[in-house]
Amino acid sequence: MTPEEFRDAGHQMIDWIADYRANIDQMPVRAQVRPGEIKNKLPTSPPETPETIDRLLQDLDQIVLPGITQVQHPMHFGWFPSNASLASVLGDIASSGLGTIGISWESCPALTEIEQVVCDWMRQLTGLSEQWEGTIHDTASTACLTALLLAREQASGYSQNAGGLQSMSKPLVVYTTEEAHSSVTKAALLAGFGKRNLRLVNHDITTRAMLPEDLKARIEQDIADDFQPTAVVASVGSTGVTAFDPVAQIAEITSQYKLWLHIDAAMAGNAMLLPECRHLWDGVEAADSISWNPHKWMGTILDCALFYVKDPEHLIRVMSTNPSYLRSSVDQQVTQYRDWGIPLGRRFRALKLWFHLRLDGPEAIRNRLRRDLDNARWFASEVAKSPDWQVVAPVTLQTVCIRHQPDGFQGEALNKHTLAWVDAINQSGEAFMSPAKIDDCWLARVSIGVETSTREHVKKLWDLIQSSAVQTLK
Amino acid sequence: MTPEEFRDAGHQMIDWIADYRANIDQMPVRAQVRPGEIKNKLPTSPPETPETIDRLLQDLDQIVLPGITQVQHPMHFGWFPSNASLASVLGDIASSGLGTIGISWESCPALTEIEQVVCDWMRQLTGLSEQWEGTIHDTASTACLTALLLAREQASGYSQNAGGLQSMSKPLVVYTTEEAHSSVTKAALLAGFGKRNLRLVNHDITTRAMLPEDLKARIEQDIADDFQPTAVVASVGSTGVTAFDPVAQIAEITSQYKLWLHIDAAMAGNAMLLPECRHLWDGVEAADSISWNPHKWMGTILDCALFYVKDPEHLIRVMSTNPSYLRSSVDQQVTQYRDWGIPLGRRFRALKLWFHLRLDGPEAIRNRLRRDLDNARWFASEVAKSPDWQVVAPVTLQTVCIRHQPDGFQGEALNKHTLAWVDAINQSGEAFMSPAKIDDCWLARVSIGVETSTREHVKKLWDLIQSSAVQTLK
Repeated sequence: MTPEEFRDAGHQMIDWIADYRANIDQMPVRAQVRPGEIKNKLPTSPPETPETIDRLLQDLDQIVLPGITQVQHPMHFGWFPSNASLASVLGDIASSGLGTIGISWESCPALTEIEQVVCDWMRQLTGLSEQWEGTIHDTASTACLTALLLAREQASGYSQNAGGLQSMSKPLVVYTTEEAHSSVTKAALLAGFGKRNLRLVNHDITTRAMLPEDLKARIEQDIADDFQPTAVVASVGSTGVTAFDPVAQIAEITSQYKLWLHIDAAMAGNAMLLPECRHLWDGVEAADSISWNPHKWMGTILDCALFYVKDPEHLIRVMSTNPSYLRSSVDQQVTQYRDWGIPLGRRFRALKLWFHLRLDGPEAIRNRLRRDLDNARWFASEVAKSPDWQVVAPVTLQTVCIRHQPDGFQGEALNKHTLAWVDAINQSGEAFMSPAKIDDCWLARVSIGVETSTREHVKKLWDLIQSSAVQTLK
Repeated sequence: MTPEEFRDAGHQMIDWIADYRANIDQMPVRAQVRPGEIKNKLPTSPPETPETIDRLLQDLDQIVLPGITQVQHPMHFGWFPSNASLASVLGDIASSGLGTIGISWESCPALTEIEQVVCDWMRQLTGLSEQWEGTIHDTASTACLTALLLAREQASGYSQNAGGLQSMSKPLVVYTTEEAHSSVTKAALLAGFGKRNLRLVNHDITTRAMLPEDLKARIEQDIADDFQPTAVVASVGSTGVTAFDPVAQIAEITSQYKLWLHIDAAMAGNAMLLPECRHLWDGVEAADSISWNPHKWMGTILDCALFYVKDPEHLIRVMSTNPSYLRSSVDQQVTQYRDWGIPLGRRFRALKLWFHLRLDGPEAIRNRLRRDLDNARWFASEVAKSPDWQVVAPVTLQTVCIRHQPDGFQGEALNKHTLAWVDAINQSGEAFMSPAKIDDCWLARVSIGVETSTREHVKKLWDLIQSSAVQTLK
């Protein structure tokens, strides 16, 4: 395809995207297709001859769109908000058009240096001190794996350069809670610690926050049992009920016993753009690594996970490679981001953050986050004052966990009822929300914060919820 | 930013990209900036108020473009080709515009099912049998790490679900060669094996291909020494000199001793689109995993690394998570790609491959690859017949490794000369190539295959090379 052919097709694509975004609220929120339905619409063999852009756009309309759960839809209240702001989309388009590869500073100095600058802007915007240096990973899952690799190598004296984790005489141990994101367990397992050496520390029954006294007791027990306590992953805004582990108290313990402290603030890191929320991670400066995803609530399109460390030297020592074909004369003076994560080649991800911050501006972003917090408080108060309805977890940010419990509904009957009324809403396509299971009991999560979701949409959702719950009882 | 504002800005962005690509050959190939130069042009604090798209486009022109080593430039002969075909860029733009999240099948059925289909198309196009199932990772580095995790868990009987790698009584061992990509060592270290348990098997002095008899001898020695041979990573087209490890002979050994065999065909997998090249990975069907990057020579924009396995059940067992907030009623009937790799959230990467294959068509892609092979043969023959010039490695694909060795130049003097004439070309901005060090001796790599590179460009390069080498002697 020549640049001129691209120009024509590109204009059509832009119009297609603008129309799609403008009319997104006309579509069902959850994809209404059955498993295999999309696949069955596609040829089993690759094409041989070129097709036209019109044909592709037609397929986007007819095959792709019905197969998307519309997370940009104002009636989407599932998982966490995953905003792809159009300002950041423009930056992503620039990145695609440039087609750069970040395998070394030399391969694209702008990719490296703009990433340094925007990571520092985000540090300032979230009130972190100058001791933090950041990079962009694909997701908080990868960032958490990286953090646990850093912890493993710190505790093992760089065993990877010798006999590996398998040469350790004492088993290394990782601590988190049951409330932590699934990626924490996955990271601990992939890093080789083994499930038996992953401790799920007790949490408070109401807030579901880690109990520091239990953490301390487990560490001491492990030391007595000849294990080597290695790392704590603290959740700052968990996925289930937005629980906040008490960072300051945990950090005191990790400093005392010299454990690595990783802060998984995947969602709630976004809230730290608001000074009034920063008390939620009090003590964060004493951690060793932090990650959070602007690609959630803040709205810098996926994949954009920030990963900050205080000691880049250690990070580089664990993650670095320096093959001859990537060497250049300036290697000693520059940052090589390939040594800050797992992949060698990297997209120009900084552009989407750069465009987002400059085209929308932090002030507008903060206002939107405050709007959502306000909507969540309003919604929670409506639920709380309605008979048979409960708000079942503290509403600290924009996610409200609720349950409808008519007289006599308990245990399995209650679970069945909850899943039924949520599923009826999701199936209708009018709104979408994702249930979650806490202590064997299902609840409905209403996660407010799509860029275009206003109070009107939240009101509409509350009406839908009430009628669905009542209908389901019939 | 509203859809209408996006429409206007998007059209400007498309024109900017089309102009950039149309005029790329007017720019210096290698970025001409000094370390810190880009960073110093940017504000140290984030903006507060919104800026305009015109301002951003101006900065793309004035700050970003000079900071890019133009890998899409027809005079780029560095590293490996990293084509970002405009057909695939359109698919990438569609992905950005849609703003989907692939955290489960339910979150975007189209993302999952189109990925299944295009991975199967690529399987067919490279002549792999139906026993392979594929997914898209960001890079071959991540795919290699995943492969070694699969090997580790197979050999250790799923130690991650028990005491971890640290509980193993015999150290697990990985085999590769010195010629393997740096990401293989990195993957072995991150997976916890430890450098001491990574064996660099001897290679043939001319082809730099792994010597199967040495592999076998080392495995037997390790067994005798009470180690547990676990995995072999074979390079199919190495980065330095495009060495091809003999897959069939290696596979015989890995089956005999029950080791995992991973095929790292990051670059040369692209050549398998050509039936006449497939003998280069003869025996590949007996491997356990394969990865290669369409984002290299084939030209599906980065990041697009294919990862194929024969036993997805094992893959899922090692990589899976199943938290309650991601469960849906169809979980048993669908593919959950989050369990096929490290990150949870995934972009709609299949679109760029889908667009590329449909808009350009495989026939045109194959023709281009054949053009490049032909150019490489022509270039190598020109070099070979010139006095003082040598082709220093077999030219199997499109990368030609050369050296200029005038009378009396050896050892350090020769190294200095090689680096000097290559650097003079790179500094000039007229062309770019990356040297590589083999057995302590530098050589110049000319990696042919940018989408717009024709015979004329290769001729121009050969003129530049000759005059630079002569100039440097003065």
